[in-house]
Amino acid sequence: MANSAFTPIPALKGQDILTVSQFKPELLSYVFNLTDDMRAMMADRGGSDLLAGRVMAALFYEPSTRTSASFIAAMARLGGGVIPITQGVQFSSVAKGESLPDTVRTLEQYADVIVLRHPEVGSAKVAAAAARVPLINAGDGAGEHPTQALLDLYTIKNELGALDGLHVAMVGDLRFGRTVHSLTRLLAQFKVRLTFVSPEILRLPLDLMNEIRDGGTPVRETYSVADAINDADVLYVTRVQKERFTDLEQYEQVKGFYTIDPAQMQHAKQRMIVMHPLPRVTEIDPAVDDDSRAAYFRQMQNGMFVRMAVLAAVLGAV
Amino acid sequence: MANSAFTPIPALKGQDILTVSQFKPELLSYVFNLTDDMRAMMADRGGSDLLAGRVMAALFYEPSTRTSASFIAAMARLGGGVIPITQGVQFSSVAKGESLPDTVRTLEQYADVIVLRHPEVGSAKVAAAAARVPLINAGDGAGEHPTQALLDLYTIKNELGALDGLHVAMVGDLRFGRTVHSLTRLLAQFKVRLTFVSPEILRLPLDLMNEIRDGGTPVRETYSVADAINDADVLYVTRVQKERFTDLEQYEQVKGFYTIDPAQMQHAKQRMIVMHPLPRVTEIDPAVDDDSRAAYFRQMQNGMFVRMAVLAAVLGAV
Amino acid sequence: MANSAFTPIPALKGQDILTVSQFKPELLSYVFNLTDDMRAMMADRGGSDLLAGRVMAALFYEPSTRTSASFIAAMARLGGGVIPITQGVQFSSVAKGESLPDTVRTLEQYADVIVLRHPEVGSAKVAAAAARVPLINAGDGAGEHPTQALLDLYTIKNELGALDGLHVAMVGDLRFGRTVHSLTRLLAQFKVRLTFVSPEILRLPLDLMNEIRDGGTPVRETYSVADAINDADVLYVTRVQKERFTDLEQYEQVKGFYTIDPAQMQHAKQRMIVMHPLPRVTEIDPAVDDDSRAAYFRQMQNGMFVRMAVLAAVLGAV
Repeated sequence: MANSAFTPIPALKGQDILTVSQFKPELLSYVFNLTDDMRAMMADRGGSDLLAGRVMAALFYEPSTRTSASFIAAMARLGGGVIPITQGVQFSSVAKGESLPDTVRTLEQYADVIVLRHPEVGSAKVAAAAARVPLINAGDGAGEHPTQALLDLYTIKNELGALDGLHVAMVGDLRFGRTVHSLTRLLAQFKVRLTFVSPEILRLPLDLMNEIRDGGTPVRETYSVADAINDADVLYVTRVQKERFTDLEQYEQVKGFYTIDPAQMQHAKQRMIVMHPLPRVTEIDPAVDDDSRAAYFRQMQNGMFVRMAVLAAVLGAV
Repeated sequence: MANSAFTPIPALKGQDILTVSQFKPELLSYVFNLTDDMRAMMADRGGSDLLAGRVMAALFYEPSTRTSASFIAAMARLGGGVIPITQGVQFSSVAKGESLPDTVRTLEQYADVIVLRHPEVGSAKVAAAAARVPLINAGDGAGEHPTQALLDLYTIKNELGALDGLHVAMVGDLRFGRTVHSLTRLLAQFKVRLTFVSPEILRLPLDLMNEIRDGGTPVRETYSVADAINDADVLYVTRVQKERFTDLEQYEQVKGFYTIDPAQMQHAKQRMIVMHPLPRVTEIDPAVDDDSRAAYFRQMQNGMFVRMAVLAAVLGAV
Repeated sequence: MANSAFTPIPALKGQDILTVSQFKPELLSYVFNLTDDMRAMMADRGGSDLLAGRVMAALFYEPSTRTSASFIAAMARLGGGVIPITQGVQFSSVAKGESLPDTVRTLEQYADVIVLRHPEVGSAKVAAAAARVPLINAGDGAGEHPTQALLDLYTIKNELGALDGLHVAMVGDLRFGRTVHSLTRLLAQFKVRLTFVSPEILRLPLDLMNEIRDGGTPVRETYSVADAINDADVLYVTRVQKERFTDLEQYEQVKGFYTIDPAQMQHAKQRMIVMHPLPRVTEIDPAVDDDSRAAYFRQMQNGMFVRMAVLAAVLGAV
């Protein structure tokens, strides 16, 4: 939908949500205000009928309990219906040889919006090109997962009040972590400092590093959490996956550096947050869960609020 | 439910939907009028609460993304609830040895209507005999799939205005294609001409051919689409499955005859439609999709409208 | 939630439902009155919007068509939303190594209540300890499945009017049958007589036998249904599973004793009921289904009513 001069804030009605690069500060502000509204409505009433009669297709070519549950809950909280295709797609139409565009063009006959999870990079773009209804990329392989990045950024803003001036430390697998890449790009639009903490073989890709450095964001790299935790406002932790290492001895050596426990949290500031996209394995000791700075479960809930906002916006209900 | 003298149009309330042979012209007209109402309601409001509080069980012993999605969407658009048992039924009660009648008699304790997909011919009849609530056959192996035939016929009527006088060409696998058999039987109730286009080994079964010939419908058979496309009002294309051929050379020879592409469409009339039950593989070139005569995605949407009408009717909500 | 002096009937709002030992006669009476209300509402209107905007997560680590369908229907009948995680959990977060507490703490960010089915004894307690929202145990291995026991007891009361004075015969696998154990404990709170009918190797565990004997309930054991059927008010039949026997000859010998058929029913009282948690295999001849004393399908429906009552109660909607 074209934006007229009378809608200075970019409208999302009818738009696809494919990449974080769609989200400039003005649009982020718009989405986060909507998210605040959803949070307030939930606290007040626990649900609404804003999307009554509307239908979302959740087309998941690979399982993702967390993401599908979050989108399904978002739709249910707004009174809408869901077509869950979250298991076994490969045994059905796709097994009969149907192309992704055909599947999408079929589903849009039934649904007002399609949420797609697919193992191949670029699949969301292909699907969106075929679809007339809004398509939301819920993860296309090593590509993007924009609502994840939105909920991450919203969590930082919601927990700490503002983005400008923050020092954000990213910890763990910074090479393959889709989540880290997208959040980094969003953060680089604000006046933040970034510290990247990873083992050598999992450092942030050079092109992304150069991109944000060239944009003027102060950046630092280190191997050790201890180098960053005392000064960080946000510690964004991700999994260091064993299978990334060819040398398992190396894995055993480094994995300890990337486990956040209560002892390490003593070096952190009183006003800071620990985030994690979950699921976690050993990166955060469960003993940290009761620390009020542990924000990862609140982060999950923000996922639902952000998705409520995005669904309502692309469906033109707000 | 018995029909009183005051309801001359056959009511569907409480009825099972098992076979197209239930649908005579008067009932078809009733269902298609309801379908028109659903279409108009959707265009106007996008959904309703006609079936609020009602529950449909979708019992799929074999996956069918398209059909289950269509039924689930139909129920959601009318505000009803869904119990989706669309995956893994075989691992549950059935694995413990439960009979289909017991599964159905259990589900009817929870649901107001049961939609059944089952790989065995006759399973829907067995299930319906056990059930007190309406049971809708959503495909029983090589048997029937009546709502598919209804949506096909509705699409022809909706696209071309009337059924009488039409020339319908069926293309592809006419031997095993459940869809083709059911639609053929429905069409034979009207003043249509039928052309059957298939390779020798996939010709329409002789008994069905005789049945419609004896009923007075003009029928013609050919091996080539080129023989039918120039004069057809409807080109109903189905998949020619490789696995039907024991001689793969034969398959390679014939498959080209049954691929509709823009070049072939130049021979077709300006006012005609191409249909396909989908999924397609190579039978219709995607380059045809943008041709306004390509009706197969609209056909999908009609599936939802027809199922909304059928669900509302059997539940006595209209 | 603490109960104040002004709510003498124990409130369930915010409570977990983990074990039948939570249910003393006063609370049973409260739940069964609610269940009666749900039944009446269903007969009257077929559904309500009592839980509109509320969301239930159905987290099933092992499939159970019957139980998940019953909970999903219960939520749908009350206008609530469902996050169905009824298949393939093992392929998702759990496969990535996530702990049950983390999964639960994530889901409670999206849902108001979590229904958990898990193959391990004690898993429900672990999950409930992690969750802030109410958690309903829908079966934890050989452990408990409290709503099943509630629906069983409700069915007896609803069919026969009162519990005191009844003679209940339990038939089949009394050793491993979770259902039998839980129902036995509930029944032992009332003035009932119990007869246990099983082959030697499937007798009720000694500790449970002693527990209810010590509580003062008159108890009798026998190998044969014929010994109990003529005097029973309730015949509660369960499956005798072939795989429990190491000696298959022994299985073939005993299985006949435990099949209820019309001939045997002639010895039963006119006012009595036959129950079965279903699925059945050969324990009850389908020829018994039309006997008005066959209560097992009504029992299924009571499962939905009881779960509607429990969901509404723990969500504080009643």
